[in-house]
Amino acid sequence: MAFRLTPHERGFYPLFTRAAENIAAAADLLAELVAAEPAARAELAARVKDAEHTGDEVTHEIMVKLNRTFVTPFDREDIYRLASSLDDVLDEMEEAADRIVLYRIDALPKGVAQQVGVLQRAAAATAEAMPKLEKMAKLREYWIHVNSLEDEADALYRDLLGDLLAPAEGTTPLDVLTVLKHKEIVEILENAADAFETVANTVESIAVKES
Amino acid sequence: MAFRLTPHERGFYPLFTRAAENIAAAADLLAELVAAEPAARAELAARVKDAEHTGDEVTHEIMVKLNRTFVTPFDREDIYRLASSLDDVLDEMEEAADRIVLYRIDALPKGVAQQVGVLQRAAAATAEAMPKLEKMAKLREYWIHVNSLEDEADALYRDLLGDLLAPAEGTTPLDVLTVLKHKEIVEILENAADAFETVANTVESIAVKES
Amino acid sequence: MAFRLTPHERGFYPLFTRAAENIAAAADLLAELVAAEPAARAELAARVKDAEHTGDEVTHEIMVKLNRTFVTPFDREDIYRLASSLDDVLDEMEEAADRIVLYRIDALPKGVAQQVGVLQRAAAATAEAMPKLEKMAKLREYWIHVNSLEDEADALYRDLLGDLLAPAEGTTPLDVLTVLKHKEIVEILENAADAFETVANTVESIAVKES
Repeated sequence: MAFRLTPHERGFYPLFTRAAENIAAAADLLAELVAAEPAARAELAARVKDAEHTGDEVTHEIMVKLNRTFVTPFDREDIYRLASSLDDVLDEMEEAADRIVLYRIDALPKGVAQQVGVLQRAAAATAEAMPKLEKMAKLREYWIHVNSLEDEADALYRDLLGDLLAPAEGTTPLDVLTVLKHKEIVEILENAADAFETVANTVESIAVKES
Repeated sequence: MAFRLTPHERGFYPLFTRAAENIAAAADLLAELVAAEPAARAELAARVKDAEHTGDEVTHEIMVKLNRTFVTPFDREDIYRLASSLDDVLDEMEEAADRIVLYRIDALPKGVAQQVGVLQRAAAATAEAMPKLEKMAKLREYWIHVNSLEDEADALYRDLLGDLLAPAEGTTPLDVLTVLKHKEIVEILENAADAFETVANTVESIAVKES
Repeated sequence: MAFRLTPHERGFYPLFTRAAENIAAAADLLAELVAAEPAARAELAARVKDAEHTGDEVTHEIMVKLNRTFVTPFDREDIYRLASSLDDVLDEMEEAADRIVLYRIDALPKGVAQQVGVLQRAAAATAEAMPKLEKMAKLREYWIHVNSLEDEADALYRDLLGDLLAPAEGTTPLDVLTVLKHKEIVEILENAADAFETVANTVESIAVKES
């Protein structure tokens, strides 16, 4: 076309994609970390921290662009929400990595690796969905998928809480300080799963308005 | 009718009323649950869970309608907030019911029944207020009432925390794992009371704008 | 001037200034409280509570004015966010003061006084920034300053968590109930630091839009 009266800023899409790919890389590092020997974890946590810094830069870039762009490709408020919720995901994952090292946790409950596995799948689905935002195509299966992953995360979380606070008869109970540490880790991982769902819900609400 | 210049979608009001009536039913079930023998609680928690599913469906119906309606009876953002905050109330109540069963809690602190009693009163007030949204009449006493119930809930919550973490001299202290479990329950119930206040604050802000 | 086409309501600025000055006064009281003998704390906590009531009144005044003002000096949503986030700061500080007394905490970890010191500095910076909102001048250094204070608060918080949950070899560990109490206090103080950052981020987003 010769000219455009509404010069939609398309530069947001690559930024959202970069944010999500960075999250996927961080989720893989977190999976390595929970599978690693305690002595190997500090270095992996430092790399998750680096990914969080990268994420902060992308978020900042989106916010600056948002404040300077007159006509945005979709609602300003939705761009803000999407960027914030992607940022939240990485904050939670970084916090989980950091606390595992800080608390000098030795053996983690088995369910923790499963929680992180769900996060990896949610991260991969999110990274795949972001480039589709521009054409608003095939996003429906993405948010349905992430919502079902969140249900899976909820069930894992609930089982972990039960094991920690009301261990089955015959199992050796952990000392209460260890319960406190483990509980905090599983809660932070659950927050990360919730944050992925918030990302998906934001995408859904954007897509429905555009349809 | 031939045509309408402002085709206000009135269908939101019955949905908000249904959401609030469902919450009131769930609050009554929760009251039954905390008064029941431990063995009878799982079945009641399952019924609270059912109510939560019903609530999710109503929330979803509101959101779909919101995205498809061009002229809404009040601010889109306020409709979104009202639906979300009603949804939050029920999520908290369901979580409280679930955790009491999951943690195999035996005797609950007495204050817990009082917390749930406040929730029942807040739920009844909310269910009564929703049908009045259409005419924006007599809502003032509703939000003042819910705010005072929240103050009552705060005081109960604070007393419960004090009893749990700094029990009076001469009382037998609970073991710390039990403290952890009870603390989580009373916190979730406090979140439910806060969520009712958020509903009331949203209604207040809608009513003030319309006045 | 004879008339104004855009009758901007300027009365918001003094209200934001009052809110922030009240917060600064409360932060000073909180610093006194954590430095005081346990027996002297209840009276100081009561004065923090008074400050919180004063803050609630200012917040309410802002919200009423917001709902009644047709042309606001900046985005309605931003005024709402700024007022709410100032309110949140004081709620957290009041809760910290209250819990220290309620839990009959004796010796607080040293880092707690440092956390409160950071809050005092953030409060002073916020009180100094609010009057500059009208001319939108020299706000950039304010939000950069508060963001760096938040980093400082994060580091203190993290160290405190480490000391509480994974005390260094050779130190006498606290009993777990005391760990629970201290952990709650340091978390609430961290929430207060986060709330100051939310205030600063809101100011940033307002200033960038206006520039």
